Amino acid sequence: MGHLKLAPRQYANHQTVITVGNARLGAEFVVMAGPCAVESREQMFETAKMVCDSGAKVLRGGAFKPRTNPYSFQGLGYEGLEILREAGKHFERPIVTEVMDPRDVGKMTDYADILQIGARNMQNYSLLKEVGTVTTPVMLKRGLCATVDEWLSCAEYILAAGNPNVLLCERGIRTYETATRNTLDLSAVALAKTITHLPIIVDPSHAVGVRELIEPLSMAALAAGADGIIVEVHCNPAVALCDREQALTGDDFARMMRRLNHLNNAMQSLPE
Amino acid sequence: MGHLKLAPRQYANHQTVITVGNARLGAEFVVMAGPCAVESREQMFETAKMVCDSGAKVLRGGAFKPRTNPYSFQGLGYEGLEILREAGKHFERPIVTEVMDPRDVGKMTDYADILQIGARNMQNYSLLKEVGTVTTPVMLKRGLCATVDEWLSCAEYILAAGNPNVLLCERGIRTYETATRNTLDLSAVALAKTITHLPIIVDPSHAVGVRELIEPLSMAALAAGADGIIVEVHCNPAVALCDREQALTGDDFARMMRRLNHLNNAMQSLPE
Amino acid sequence: MGHLKLAPRQYANHQTVITVGNARLGAEFVVMAGPCAVESREQMFETAKMVCDSGAKVLRGGAFKPRTNPYSFQGLGYEGLEILREAGKHFERPIVTEVMDPRDVGKMTDYADILQIGARNMQNYSLLKEVGTVTTPVMLKRGLCATVDEWLSCAEYILAAGNPNVLLCERGIRTYETATRNTLDLSAVALAKTITHLPIIVDPSHAVGVRELIEPLSMAALAAGADGIIVEVHCNPAVALCDREQALTGDDFARMMRRLNHLNNAMQSLPE
Amino acid sequence: MGHLKLAPRQYANHQTVITVGNARLGAEFVVMAGPCAVESREQMFETAKMVCDSGAKVLRGGAFKPRTNPYSFQGLGYEGLEILREAGKHFERPIVTEVMDPRDVGKMTDYADILQIGARNMQNYSLLKEVGTVTTPVMLKRGLCATVDEWLSCAEYILAAGNPNVLLCERGIRTYETATRNTLDLSAVALAKTITHLPIIVDPSHAVGVRELIEPLSMAALAAGADGIIVEVHCNPAVALCDREQALTGDDFARMMRRLNHLNNAMQSLPE
Repeated sequence: MGHLKLAPRQYANHQTVITVGNARLGAEFVVMAGPCAVESREQMFETAKMVCDSGAKVLRGGAFKPRTNPYSFQGLGYEGLEILREAGKHFERPIVTEVMDPRDVGKMTDYADILQIGARNMQNYSLLKEVGTVTTPVMLKRGLCATVDEWLSCAEYILAAGNPNVLLCERGIRTYETATRNTLDLSAVALAKTITHLPIIVDPSHAVGVRELIEPLSMAALAAGADGIIVEVHCNPAVALCDREQALTGDDFARMMRRLNHLNNAMQSLPE
Repeated sequence: MGHLKLAPRQYANHQTVITVGNARLGAEFVVMAGPCAVESREQMFETAKMVCDSGAKVLRGGAFKPRTNPYSFQGLGYEGLEILREAGKHFERPIVTEVMDPRDVGKMTDYADILQIGARNMQNYSLLKEVGTVTTPVMLKRGLCATVDEWLSCAEYILAAGNPNVLLCERGIRTYETATRNTLDLSAVALAKTITHLPIIVDPSHAVGVRELIEPLSMAALAAGADGIIVEVHCNPAVALCDREQALTGDDFARMMRRLNHLNNAMQSLPE
Repeated sequence: MGHLKLAPRQYANHQTVITVGNARLGAEFVVMAGPCAVESREQMFETAKMVCDSGAKVLRGGAFKPRTNPYSFQGLGYEGLEILREAGKHFERPIVTEVMDPRDVGKMTDYADILQIGARNMQNYSLLKEVGTVTTPVMLKRGLCATVDEWLSCAEYILAAGNPNVLLCERGIRTYETATRNTLDLSAVALAKTITHLPIIVDPSHAVGVRELIEPLSMAALAAGADGIIVEVHCNPAVALCDREQALTGDDFARMMRRLNHLNNAMQSLPE
Repeated sequence: MGHLKLAPRQYANHQTVITVGNARLGAEFVVMAGPCAVESREQMFETAKMVCDSGAKVLRGGAFKPRTNPYSFQGLGYEGLEILREAGKHFERPIVTEVMDPRDVGKMTDYADILQIGARNMQNYSLLKEVGTVTTPVMLKRGLCATVDEWLSCAEYILAAGNPNVLLCERGIRTYETATRNTLDLSAVALAKTITHLPIIVDPSHAVGVRELIEPLSMAALAAGADGIIVEVHCNPAVALCDREQALTGDDFARMMRRLNHLNNAMQSLPE
C-alpha cells in the first residue's frame, strides 16, 4: 500500500475525529439508524422517532436508491431529501444519505450532513473527485469485492481532492456463501484500523440481510474496534419498499441499543 | 431474471447485430485491439498499424483511465481522444474507448464509435442512463464480482433508457486465485448467450493479465461461442504506461490472428 | 511454486503421456464419459454403449459417491465396481472411478484403470500418499477453492510417493456466481499447461451443472489446450439418482462428439 | 437445510454442552491455546505453562500437520502425541489435536481429549464416519470454502454415525482478499448459532494469520456469541516451525485473556 499518502496512520499520526451534530465519529461509538429508503413523511418521522428515542445519533435514509432492477422503486429523489432535512431538524440529528451522481453533489450538500458513496460506486472516480471538492463529510462504503487496499485508495482519491472528512464503511463482501446476503468482514475492519486514521463504520444490515443476525454482529463490530454502526430500522418492516428482511423493528433496535451500551461501557474500561 | 424485459432472447427473438465500420458485431467473430492507454501519437499509430495489418476490425485505446492509485497516470483525456480519432480515420477503423463520467457522454460521441463502460462503473446507474440517451453503441463490461443477472440488469438500464445498441463484455471475475489477475469466466459467456440477444465480447487481457495465456483463452472464447474479443497490444510492451505484463507484441498478435482465423473457419462449418 | 520438484515442466522436460487402453492421455484429446453413479447393470451398459458408439475412449462411473447429504444415495460400492469392471471388459474400455478411503486403494486397483481423487479429497494427504504407492494412474481433481499452486502441490504428493502417472482435472471452482453450479476456470488450465508436464482434463459437467452449457464449454476446453474432458452421460437423465440436471443424453453426447472431432481436426493443423 | 436431522436446534431443543476437563463447551466461553505444532518437549511445556497460567482451559498442539508443501515439516506424529499427553497430564488440561487418517482414529483416542478434523478434511467422509464410531469429542473445522449448510451436513455425518459430541470451528474462509490469510466469517457463526445446538468455536489465528488482529477478532467472536476460541501461542514465535506470523507470544496472550475476561463479564450481564 505504498501508494497511499494521506490515508495512512503515519500521515496524520492521530485518529481523525469528525464531528457532526452531537456525534464525534472516531472518538466514540456512534450508531446511525433509519429506513433503507425514505418512503413518506409519516414513515420517516415515525422511524426517526423510534431510533432517536433509543439513542441513535445520526439519521439515515435513502432518497436516491441504486437498484439492481431498473424497473423497481428508485427512491423519492429531492422530495425525499426535503423530508430527510425536515426530520433532521425536527429530531436535531445530522443526516446521512447516498449521492450517486457527480452532478448532484453541490446541491446535496444543502441537505446532507454526511454524503454516502455506495458500494457500487466505490470506484466511480468522477464521483469521488467531486465529493473531494466539498467539505461535507463523506462515508465511503467498501465495494462488494474490494480489497482493503482498493478501499483505502478510493478514500485517498477523496482526500487528495481536498476533503479531509472521510469515513469508511464496511458493509459485507461477496463470497460463495448464500445463506447470508453478503459476508461481514470484521477482519478487514481490524486490519484497516491498524493502517488508517480514518473512522470506520460497520453496516451489518447490508452485510447479512437477515434481521436476527444484526444484533450479534453489531456487538461483534463494537468489540472488534469499529467506530460505529449504521443499521436499517423501519416502523413497519413488513411493508418496507426495499430490504424488508433486514430492517429491524423499533423494539429490536431498542433492545440492541441497551446491549450495545452495556458492552460499550465494558469496552471503555478494558484492562491493559 | 424475471425483471428483464428488453435484454432476453424472447424480446428480440433474434441475435442483435451492431454494425460499426466493417465490423458486424453479433454476426461474425470480431477482434478489437490496441493499447491499454493512448500514450502518444507515435505509439498509437505504430500499434494501430500492427493490429490493422493483422486483421483487427476495431481499434481500442484508453484516454480516460480508471486507476486504483490516484497518483498514477490517468490517461491523456481529450488530447488522447483526438489522437484516437485521427488513428481511426487513418486506418479506417472504428474506435472503442472508455467513458467514465456522465458529463462527458455527449462530447465523447464525437470521438468514439463504441463507448465502453468499465467494470468499475458497471453499476454506475447515472452513467448507464446517460449512455442510454445516445445511439452510439455501448460496450458494457461485467463488474469484477457481478453475477450474470446483475450484468444483464445493467444492460437493461441502457436499453430501457432508449439505446438498443448494447454489447456485453466478459473481462474476468475476481476469485481467490492469485496466479492470474482475474479468472476468465467462459461459463458466464456460454450462459449469457442462452439468455440474451446482445453480442458478447471477451477481454482475455484483463481477465488473466499474463501474456502467454491470451492466445489459448482467445481460442477458447471463440470456441465457447463469443462474438469477439478485445485484446491489448502495444508496439513496445516493456515501456507501456499501464498493464505492460498483459500487452501482446505485434508478432504475438499476428500469430494469434492466424490461429483464430483457422479455428474460426472450422467453427463456421460445424456439423449438426 | 518453488517447492515443486517433480511436477514442473523443467523436471520432465517433456509432456507426460499416460496410456490406458486405447487412450494416450497427454498425446491426444481424450473423452471420458459415463454416468455420475453406477445405478444398475442395465443403466451402466446402456449408457456405456451410447458413449462408446460415439467415440468415448474411457468409461466413467461412480461406485463410492461423496454426497453432501449423509442420508442420500452413497453409491453401490463394490457391487458397483463389479458392474463397472464388467462394462469395461464388454466395451473394451478402461475405467475411471473415484476412491475415497486409503483403505480401499489396494483393492480398487483390481477394478479401476484410473483412480479418481475427488475435489473434496484433493488435500486428503493420507489418501494422496496411499495412491502414490501404486502404479495405477490417478486423476486428481482440483479442489473447489484450490489455487493452481495447491493443486500442483497435491500432485507433487502423489509423485513424491512414487506414482508418476498423475492426471490433473479442472472441475470448476466456487465463486459468488449462482447461475451455474461452479465456475469453469480455463485460465487455470492454460496456466497449468505452462507449468507442468502432467496431462490436464476438464470436467464441464460438474463445473457448470447445466446441460446446455456442456457442449460450448467442452469446445472451449479443447481450444484452450486441455488434454481431454470427462462428461456425465445418462441413458435417461430424468431418472438419474444424482446430478440429473447436468447429464447429457446419448443424442446430446453424439452431437457434441461430432463437433469436438471437427474442431480437434482444426486444432491439429494450427498455423504457426 | 431440510436434510439435517440431528444437528438442528429443533432436534435437541437445548444447547449441547460437552465437558472435557474443566471446560464446559457450550456453557461457558472456553479458550483453547498452544502451539501450531509440537516441536519438542521443551517448546510444548514452556508454551503450555504460559497459556495455562493465563487461563487457557484446553491445550492445543499438532502432531500430524497437513502441509501444502509435501517437503516441509509434517509434524512429529506419535512422538508428538506422547509429548502432548504428558503436557496435558502435567498441566491438568485436556488436549485437542488433529487426526488426518481414519486408520489413526482408534489409536488417537488414547491421546486426545478432543479430535480435530481440519479444514482440508471437512468433507473426508471416511474420516467423518470413523470419528463417528468413537465417543471422544470431535471439533470439526469449516472447510475453506464450505457453506454453513455443508459444514452442518458434515457434522450430521458424525452425529449419524453415533458420536453426539461434536464441536464446530469457524477458521476463516477463502475470499479474494489477500491482506489477511483468510477472512474470518462471524456472520456464519451468528447464523450457525441460530440453526444448531452444537457449540461453535472460532479460530482467529488461521482466519487472519496476522498477530495484531488476533485480539480484536477474539473479542469480536466473544461478542458475536461464539462458545470459545482456539488460538496459536508459541514460547518463541520467531523460531516456530510453522505459522510463525500468527502465533501470539505469552505476553500477547496474557493481555488478551485479561481483556476477554473483562468483556466476558459484561456479556454475562447483558440487559434484555
